[in-house]
Amino acid sequence: MAGQLVLLRHGQSQWNLENRFTGWVDVDLSDTGREEAKQAGKLLADENIRFDIAFTSVLTRAIKTLWLALGEMDQPWVDVERHWRLNERHYGGLQGLDKSETAEKHGDEQVHIWRRSYDTPPPAMDLDDPGHPRHDPRYAKLDARVLPGTESLKLTLERVLPYWHDAIAPRLKAGDNVLVAAHGNSLRALVKYLDGIADDEITGLNIPTGIPLRYTLDDELNVIESAYLGDAEAAEAAAKAVADQAKNK
Amino acid sequence: MAGQLVLLRHGQSQWNLENRFTGWVDVDLSDTGREEAKQAGKLLADENIRFDIAFTSVLTRAIKTLWLALGEMDQPWVDVERHWRLNERHYGGLQGLDKSETAEKHGDEQVHIWRRSYDTPPPAMDLDDPGHPRHDPRYAKLDARVLPGTESLKLTLERVLPYWHDAIAPRLKAGDNVLVAAHGNSLRALVKYLDGIADDEITGLNIPTGIPLRYTLDDELNVIESAYLGDAEAAEAAAKAVADQAKNK
Repeated sequence: MAGQLVLLRHGQSQWNLENRFTGWVDVDLSDTGREEAKQAGKLLADENIRFDIAFTSVLTRAIKTLWLALGEMDQPWVDVERHWRLNERHYGGLQGLDKSETAEKHGDEQVHIWRRSYDTPPPAMDLDDPGHPRHDPRYAKLDARVLPGTESLKLTLERVLPYWHDAIAPRLKAGDNVLVAAHGNSLRALVKYLDGIADDEITGLNIPTGIPLRYTLDDELNVIESAYLGDAEAAEAAAKAVADQAKNK
Repeated sequence: MAGQLVLLRHGQSQWNLENRFTGWVDVDLSDTGREEAKQAGKLLADENIRFDIAFTSVLTRAIKTLWLALGEMDQPWVDVERHWRLNERHYGGLQGLDKSETAEKHGDEQVHIWRRSYDTPPPAMDLDDPGHPRHDPRYAKLDARVLPGTESLKLTLERVLPYWHDAIAPRLKAGDNVLVAAHGNSLRALVKYLDGIADDEITGLNIPTGIPLRYTLDDELNVIESAYLGDAEAAEAAAKAVADQAKNK
């Protein structure tokens, strides 16, 4: 049997709190986010899962969520691989903007399309924009043409999956237990792939922050079962809170 | 020119505070130790060093020192490789014992030899001792015969150097800036090798905790210069404090 897979969405960031589009902007966790991360670590500790490897993005809020969770589990010594392909969806020209102001400017319907259609990316960030990832030293060794200036969820999935296939899946097939600490949309991409969710349904799926999602997989990495750890009602309430945030703001 | 190398000894641990032999026992940082780690991060941030990779041991106190320093530097996204070869010297049967009590039991002179001779290891820990590393899941994939039950500084150096040559040195030669967050004796081993310090002098060298030690190296990794970051007097006082701790307790 394959190793266990646990997906963990980072806790609240400073910009979630301020209701701004974040994407690849490297915003830190809020105090609430740090608490969520520790709570996730406690839930994992309760399950006595011993991880062989952890994967995360190159964004602070996911990395620190992982650090706090591994610390709570007394497993800070687990190998960690960071990769840009696990980053959040790039939100293009919307990054940094207040969500309510963006809705006023472009209209609710347009913003709803950018946020919830599967394959419509927001306006692209200009290559010369200092916020474009090609100016960020953490991506300096990458061919700039691979770095997004905007992404739909479809484009996010297309850059996440190569890393899944090359780095994560082989470890699971080798029987290793794997923790992935990442973002709403990079995890959505993985869940879409694993659970075979249709294009028009995936954007309605909301992964709660700070609640580990465990997959049991067969040798071919087909899903046998998946479940949020801890209290089922709490997971449902957290997913609803995420969904409501998307609707109302 | 080779990349810059910075060595960082972890801050005070809970057992430093309690004056017990630690070695491979996985003791966490004390509050003071956490502060030292953050302070080290501030010193590194002041120097504007952008690291390409960080190396640490598989012991919590070194890993958390690294996490806190990288967090202070806003570089949590730097790749981190953990390796058992960077662990503290294994203190054998002395691990867990109170240092004063050990001196009363075995005599000051014997304890001084175990602590400060280059090649005399303390009594070995029994293979069946539950504290022996072969029972620890973090070493489960290693051949048990490579795992120490005790070490002199010489033995520590002999297991650190292969990792230096295979993992750390190639990165420096490739021009990458490298941070190594580790322990009093694994760092002593590296300093001995880099600076060509004699066997009978190295145990008198005390690396202060939480003060980054920067090396500038030529293409062949010969030392051009090395210096502690920040205030020179502070570094000297910290080294003396470490030396006094060894002498008096």
